[in-house]
Amino acid sequence: MSHPHPELGPPPPLAKQTLRVVPLGGLGEIGRNMTVFEYGGKLLIVDCGVLFPEEEQPGVDLILPDFDYIRGRLDDVVAIVLTHGHEDHIGAVPFLLRERADIPLVGSRLTLAFISAKLGEHRIKPEVVQVAEGERRSFGAFDLEFFSVNHSIPDALAVGIRTPAGSLLHTGDFKMDQLPLDGRLTDLAGFARFGAEGVDLLLSDSTNAEVPGFVTSERDIAGVIDNVFDKADKRIILACFASHIHRVQQVLDSAEAHGRKVAFVGRSMVRNMNIARDLGYLTIPAGLLVDVKELEDLRPEQVLLVCTGSQGEPMAALSRMANRDHQIRIERGDTVVLASSLIPGNENAVNRNINGLTRWGANVVHKGNALVHVSGHSSAGELMYVLNMVKPRNFMPVHGEWRHLRAHAKLAALTGVPEQGIVIAEDGVVVDLHKGKARIVGAVPAGYVYVDGTSVGDVTESALKDRRILGDEGFISVVIAVDSQSGKLVGEPQIHTRGSGIDVEAYDEVIPKIQDSLEKAAADGITDPSQLRQLVRRNLGRWVNDTYRRRPMIVPVVVEV
Amino acid sequence: MSHPHPELGPPPPLAKQTLRVVPLGGLGEIGRNMTVFEYGGKLLIVDCGVLFPEEEQPGVDLILPDFDYIRGRLDDVVAIVLTHGHEDHIGAVPFLLRERADIPLVGSRLTLAFISAKLGEHRIKPEVVQVAEGERRSFGAFDLEFFSVNHSIPDALAVGIRTPAGSLLHTGDFKMDQLPLDGRLTDLAGFARFGAEGVDLLLSDSTNAEVPGFVTSERDIAGVIDNVFDKADKRIILACFASHIHRVQQVLDSAEAHGRKVAFVGRSMVRNMNIARDLGYLTIPAGLLVDVKELEDLRPEQVLLVCTGSQGEPMAALSRMANRDHQIRIERGDTVVLASSLIPGNENAVNRNINGLTRWGANVVHKGNALVHVSGHSSAGELMYVLNMVKPRNFMPVHGEWRHLRAHAKLAALTGVPEQGIVIAEDGVVVDLHKGKARIVGAVPAGYVYVDGTSVGDVTESALKDRRILGDEGFISVVIAVDSQSGKLVGEPQIHTRGSGIDVEAYDEVIPKIQDSLEKAAADGITDPSQLRQLVRRNLGRWVNDTYRRRPMIVPVVVEV
Repeated sequence: MSHPHPELGPPPPLAKQTLRVVPLGGLGEIGRNMTVFEYGGKLLIVDCGVLFPEEEQPGVDLILPDFDYIRGRLDDVVAIVLTHGHEDHIGAVPFLLRERADIPLVGSRLTLAFISAKLGEHRIKPEVVQVAEGERRSFGAFDLEFFSVNHSIPDALAVGIRTPAGSLLHTGDFKMDQLPLDGRLTDLAGFARFGAEGVDLLLSDSTNAEVPGFVTSERDIAGVIDNVFDKADKRIILACFASHIHRVQQVLDSAEAHGRKVAFVGRSMVRNMNIARDLGYLTIPAGLLVDVKELEDLRPEQVLLVCTGSQGEPMAALSRMANRDHQIRIERGDTVVLASSLIPGNENAVNRNINGLTRWGANVVHKGNALVHVSGHSSAGELMYVLNMVKPRNFMPVHGEWRHLRAHAKLAALTGVPEQGIVIAEDGVVVDLHKGKARIVGAVPAGYVYVDGTSVGDVTESALKDRRILGDEGFISVVIAVDSQSGKLVGEPQIHTRGSGIDVEAYDEVIPKIQDSLEKAAADGITDPSQLRQLVRRNLGRWVNDTYRRRPMIVPVVVEV
Repeated sequence: MSHPHPELGPPPPLAKQTLRVVPLGGLGEIGRNMTVFEYGGKLLIVDCGVLFPEEEQPGVDLILPDFDYIRGRLDDVVAIVLTHGHEDHIGAVPFLLRERADIPLVGSRLTLAFISAKLGEHRIKPEVVQVAEGERRSFGAFDLEFFSVNHSIPDALAVGIRTPAGSLLHTGDFKMDQLPLDGRLTDLAGFARFGAEGVDLLLSDSTNAEVPGFVTSERDIAGVIDNVFDKADKRIILACFASHIHRVQQVLDSAEAHGRKVAFVGRSMVRNMNIARDLGYLTIPAGLLVDVKELEDLRPEQVLLVCTGSQGEPMAALSRMANRDHQIRIERGDTVVLASSLIPGNENAVNRNINGLTRWGANVVHKGNALVHVSGHSSAGELMYVLNMVKPRNFMPVHGEWRHLRAHAKLAALTGVPEQGIVIAEDGVVVDLHKGKARIVGAVPAGYVYVDGTSVGDVTESALKDRRILGDEGFISVVIAVDSQSGKLVGEPQIHTRGSGIDVEAYDEVIPKIQDSLEKAAADGITDPSQLRQLVRRNLGRWVNDTYRRRPMIVPVVVEV
């Protein structure tokens, strides 16, 4: 990602009585949320999440924040606060704990259960500090207070941070459902109280800052789901996020009311629902749950499958059903419900699934044709409530792409935050809070760190650039053997190509040209392999471009024999 | 694309008194619309368009219908009817005319102007037959009648086709703006008259069949555009489709009323607006138009740029502005308007542009935050009007993905088309109309034909599969030289890699293993290059997978010296 503040140099050493804010992820993108707060030589981290790659990052599994800024100072980290259990807030923790395993993880009961399960897969047993809304807890000079917030996963928290250099409030992700299923409201009264005390800097979730108005209650989905169950006379297959416990609860309730048995499908769905049930966040009536194998003994109208794949993830259960590559075979009349958001970037994949399912005869219900999803993030209407309650001296929109950050900044200005107190930063931009004033003081590296397979950071921008060329055009490799003494060509150049779409026979036209130029080079006494490679690349490249108007990668190899 | 009717064999020879319908594109996808009608040994083609590739077709420029079905019978083609001038209806014509240049092209004045300009670039001068709404014209046994339809390009037509074996109506793309800017309504009365005469088969545009209700009038955009002009105090940069002449007209009118000069930016925008003006479809007040170079002499509030790039096409003007790669540099306070639809599949690219523009300080107005676009395709409400007016004996939804075709089929059933008369076909599925009954009788090849650079069809599914692997994982090539006499390895294996993200040094670990296994093979008398390659591939592949959990393409090359 290029930098919006190209003029910014490294930040100065941290001055006394100054609180430094260093966003390492989530500003300028939706994902890999991570912010570092510094005071008096100590660091507090809030969230440490992953970003999922787009088509611009081919072959990449995950994108992490760049830990470089804190790498030399891991011993100064007093804690990582995890606001909630979503991947874009906790997913990078295992990678950071590889570098120092005993950094305390601070979070709510469910959040800690989710991160502990994940760390277990990485064979890491973390130090955890369980907290709840209303509690205060100090880590060095950082005095933390936790506020309940309402989100698309239970047990989410906002965190207030008091330091000798000033106070700030970080909302995490939140919405403000006024009738939440678990009765746990976003603690607007707490925000107001903290605001009255004086909040120097508010960092607030910008995801839906462009969306006017208010988010409907999660409760409003129940009627729609019931309606789907009323109408369906074959199987119901419902896909949603594996962490949306309240959504699943509503679906289970409907299933029970309609006499359907339920099977969970998909590893993360099964794991998370087990955790949620064990901790009491999900109530499953006795006898409701069955194993997938038991479904065969049931009539279609007695079946509900709850599965993953609502985002069109190619390996998830629903996508495999759409492609007839799953033990569950879609039959004519089945009802498929996509009870989730459509994360930007996944439109094509989800559309392919809808078409695939439709083709096999399923009726597909999705947020485009029914209210089967409400967002987990506050819209502009709710964001203004928070701004008006907290009345921060300074404001920094977080969690969003540029369009969202700017929209949120406008809302802040409209609600009366002074213009000079509104700081639109992006990843890596360092903001210092000193005597009640926030200002940008420099920038640190905050590029994408790619996880591909087991390795972190091996795949660089340059490898991705190569992948993009290879993916668009393929490659042609030319192997020439030259006599190490005379520099003369031995035998014919061998051509291998994949993905170029240019037939093997076609090269008969160009091979003599390559041979000619190599012979001339030998006659001129040119034997340097890199010059010979250059010669081959130029000859072949020109021919391909002139003949086909294409630019495959050309890989000349000189073997000295 | 896999086939939905895997059981279908080739169709039987065409029976007497039978009209055959062979959709070669546009059924199961949005794009490359092309339908072949056969009667009495003659062929009539309606539309011949291109499909734009998605990320599943990396490096592909265009996707054409497969002409294989008609290739041996080009002399039997009596005409190609072009319903309107959009690329997905005319874009493949140059490729078909390469195979027989004198097939008559039948269309309205503007449509023929657009296709002639395009063919001029391919150095083809077509035979054209200009028609207008209300006219009838016979081509062999095909008696054609043309009806005006309203769409997002002027001068669009539907076509009624009467043959001794039955009558059908093909709507082309259409909407039903009741207050069209050019006063040219979709001829619903004509449809009704034709319906009263008896329509055996209706083929109708399914693009928006899932969208309930009615499409707002194009006229409603004017007020919104005026509002944008009222508010903007710096430059306005408006991007829309280069063929949306009515949209551009509204924008020019606003510009004139607000004292702004206009420059067109982008090759297709300049070319199409010239054609439209020359033919009287676009009215440009004297003195309004300026050259881009003259803009420097104007104040920002006197400038309107109308450009291409509303879909995030990487080489288009607007995308280059968003990336600071265009002579027009976005300045703080500029207003950018995306006055177009967002074609599914382009979400990421458009989103990147919006973020880029926003980052440089532009205010971006788009259909997500203002009514700056209305669709060119009828919604369910209007589609039902057509079904109820035509009252066809049989119905075949066209122009749509599976989800759209099924939704349109449901509307047909609701309006009373008998279930057995509703035929959901997809590309290549052959439908015969005989004695008032339509039925599926077989299937013909209708796969994607890829244009990449100058070549058509060279890039196959297998090359694309290679590209996907290369694009995701890169490749590792291993060149080994063996003595052609002894089969023994000469020197060390050479490793070249691009895009794999695995460092050159890392291979020190595996090269000895490869050498070992080659030496063992030589000792066992194995000299066959394909066996040696297999050996290298297996050794290296296993090592990469075990060490990195990745699967780059492995390309072993054996050079015999």
